[in-house]
Amino acid sequence: MIFAERMRGMKPSAIREILKVTQAPDVISFAGGLPAPELFPVAEIARAAQQVMNEDPTGALQYGLTEGHGPLRSWVTTHVAETVRLHAEASDVLITQGSQQALDLLSKVLLDPGDIVLVENPGYLGALQAFQSYQADVVGLDADADGVRPAALERALAPAIRRPKFLYLIPNYQNPTGTSMSAQRRCEIAAIAARHQLLVVEDDPYGRLRFEGEALPALGELQPDLNWVYLGTVSKILTPGLRVAWLITRDKLLFQALAMAKQAADLHTSTFTQRVVEVAVRPAGWLAQHVETLCRVYRARRDVMLHALAEHVPQGRWNRPSGGLFLWVTLDGNIDTTEVLKAASEHKVAFVPGAPFWVGQPTPTNTFRLNFSNASEERILEGMARLGKLLRAAKAA
Amino acid sequence: MIFAERMRGMKPSAIREILKVTQAPDVISFAGGLPAPELFPVAEIARAAQQVMNEDPTGALQYGLTEGHGPLRSWVTTHVAETVRLHAEASDVLITQGSQQALDLLSKVLLDPGDIVLVENPGYLGALQAFQSYQADVVGLDADADGVRPAALERALAPAIRRPKFLYLIPNYQNPTGTSMSAQRRCEIAAIAARHQLLVVEDDPYGRLRFEGEALPALGELQPDLNWVYLGTVSKILTPGLRVAWLITRDKLLFQALAMAKQAADLHTSTFTQRVVEVAVRPAGWLAQHVETLCRVYRARRDVMLHALAEHVPQGRWNRPSGGLFLWVTLDGNIDTTEVLKAASEHKVAFVPGAPFWVGQPTPTNTFRLNFSNASEERILEGMARLGKLLRAAKAA
Repeated sequence: MIFAERMRGMKPSAIREILKVTQAPDVISFAGGLPAPELFPVAEIARAAQQVMNEDPTGALQYGLTEGHGPLRSWVTTHVAETVRLHAEASDVLITQGSQQALDLLSKVLLDPGDIVLVENPGYLGALQAFQSYQADVVGLDADADGVRPAALERALAPAIRRPKFLYLIPNYQNPTGTSMSAQRRCEIAAIAARHQLLVVEDDPYGRLRFEGEALPALGELQPDLNWVYLGTVSKILTPGLRVAWLITRDKLLFQALAMAKQAADLHTSTFTQRVVEVAVRPAGWLAQHVETLCRVYRARRDVMLHALAEHVPQGRWNRPSGGLFLWVTLDGNIDTTEVLKAASEHKVAFVPGAPFWVGQPTPTNTFRLNFSNASEERILEGMARLGKLLRAAKAA
Repeated sequence: MIFAERMRGMKPSAIREILKVTQAPDVISFAGGLPAPELFPVAEIARAAQQVMNEDPTGALQYGLTEGHGPLRSWVTTHVAETVRLHAEASDVLITQGSQQALDLLSKVLLDPGDIVLVENPGYLGALQAFQSYQADVVGLDADADGVRPAALERALAPAIRRPKFLYLIPNYQNPTGTSMSAQRRCEIAAIAARHQLLVVEDDPYGRLRFEGEALPALGELQPDLNWVYLGTVSKILTPGLRVAWLITRDKLLFQALAMAKQAADLHTSTFTQRVVEVAVRPAGWLAQHVETLCRVYRARRDVMLHALAEHVPQGRWNRPSGGLFLWVTLDGNIDTTEVLKAASEHKVAFVPGAPFWVGQPTPTNTFRLNFSNASEERILEGMARLGKLLRAAKAA
């Protein structure tokens, strides 16, 4: 059938099928990218919902503007000015249905089948899926502990090669690796992109979850003449279930095209959830304090996981992310982590094998991603012990 | 620029620009498709939001399944069974971000550039935009007071012509005309589509707003072997601001493709708003009673508008829709309603000229759409008097 052909690269992966099996309540899962639900600001959201319905109920329940709720767009400009020193006008802000929709709209507006999109390798699965759903040719760039290598970007921009449409990056605590781009690397990558007039899509869902070190500048702030789109969201600092995120670009023509694409895609994001967010973040200083709590708890969980890794996974290497939700493990030898996962539900522990995050060939099979934000310290300890057993069993097999 | 090319057929129309001017509070607008805000069930939604936050706050704020919230999908099956005698399993129901997203996902999954999509002529603008944003070749089928003409559909399916990908219909109180397909016409169209194995996308946002007459069956219920997708929404029976709608198909492969497309598009619709809807509609009989109120008020507004038309617009013909939000006016002679609209802000009244709803050439210029759901009876009377003056001034000019 026609649509089966169009869904190339979007088929439900074997891994997704296995992970479904690991969703039983007795399985300790490090697989998802879920925030800690016990830290959701439930009382504040409930109060905000009530306040929205008291303040202007019909406004909150009626159709709204495609671009988004005015006061929320204004708050976004304040938020990004405070957190990433990004200076934007409210008219540069497009409210999206999660950052995933921003990736979809950018793809729809910018990509033709066969167009090249550059990503960090390994890269964020949701972004790969969005680009591939528009039949883009996704090309992975070599990365190290400081982020994408400048030489890899230069090579991808060589005159003999088809010109890429854009470069997609998560500079802060990347998904899946947890890597943060160094300050110098940001300068180098931004300079190369600016020189080649390459559009950079900077996705920053995890930037506020900073456990240590200084906040590093956004790429567009380093290179004012960079062709640049910035994505942010409340999913990781407030809650993901409201589906409220934002795209910022100063390119008026691109903004207009994206807004028209959003109008055709879903008219607008829920007026109600937009207002709930806007009201919830109103009290001065509250969000910063809430994010501080998240960072304190996630930092401790990361540390517990790092200790447990040293104890239970002697046959591997891993990084020590300075923020975010994830860390990345590389096993010694040629253990196939996708194969290992098949016994995960038996051992009551889950992770995501690295394979689907890698772009191009050859795909390393001995990597996997661990999430440390969702489970409690006790569950992390227990889960890592189970993971150790699982890995030992796999090695023996 | 590349994306300007991709946005062909999506440019902000001159009409949209004029309509922006008519959004001043002293303008009486019959232009939008807005429900009456004073009838929004504010207390029920507010209570539902509170209850959701009491029952399972973390579930309501966490990431959710792409296909939708289980209890809401179950409710949808009950709702469509009661209202359109459609028998579906919860697993056939995909929750979408308004019906607009269903149109976007269907386009993404089914359409290649240049593919033919059949629509009623004139047709729903949001659907035309969605199909055109995927560079479809939208073909309008002649319609009369009973809906699409069978002969027009037969002609479009002639063997010499490229095979259309699907037929898009709003059988109940169509947007823009307010026309309802007759029972016989439904049978005829469904039979032709089934014989040609043509997919029918039946969009039913207004079906519950029935002022008189019997409810007529959905096309897929008339022809059990029809290749058929059904779209519904709470936008017109509850509120549009929550952005909760549904797509139903028994085609498992198509369902899977649409769910994957939705995952790439926005992961899922807000878990919070889905639950608010599900809790709001729980009390037995409440929604039916609420819809009865809507019908009573909208029926009276329609009648006021029909009387005012007879009084103030002697130079035209119009229909008497038996439900929905809209009616359709055709003026005598060659008055261009797009030109007339230019003086609308001066006369403090607005409508939507018919031109953008028409597909293909020649485009009639002497039609326009009126909405009767949004303004009170008093405002309708005053607005129609202004419209009469505006039309007389246009004729004299």
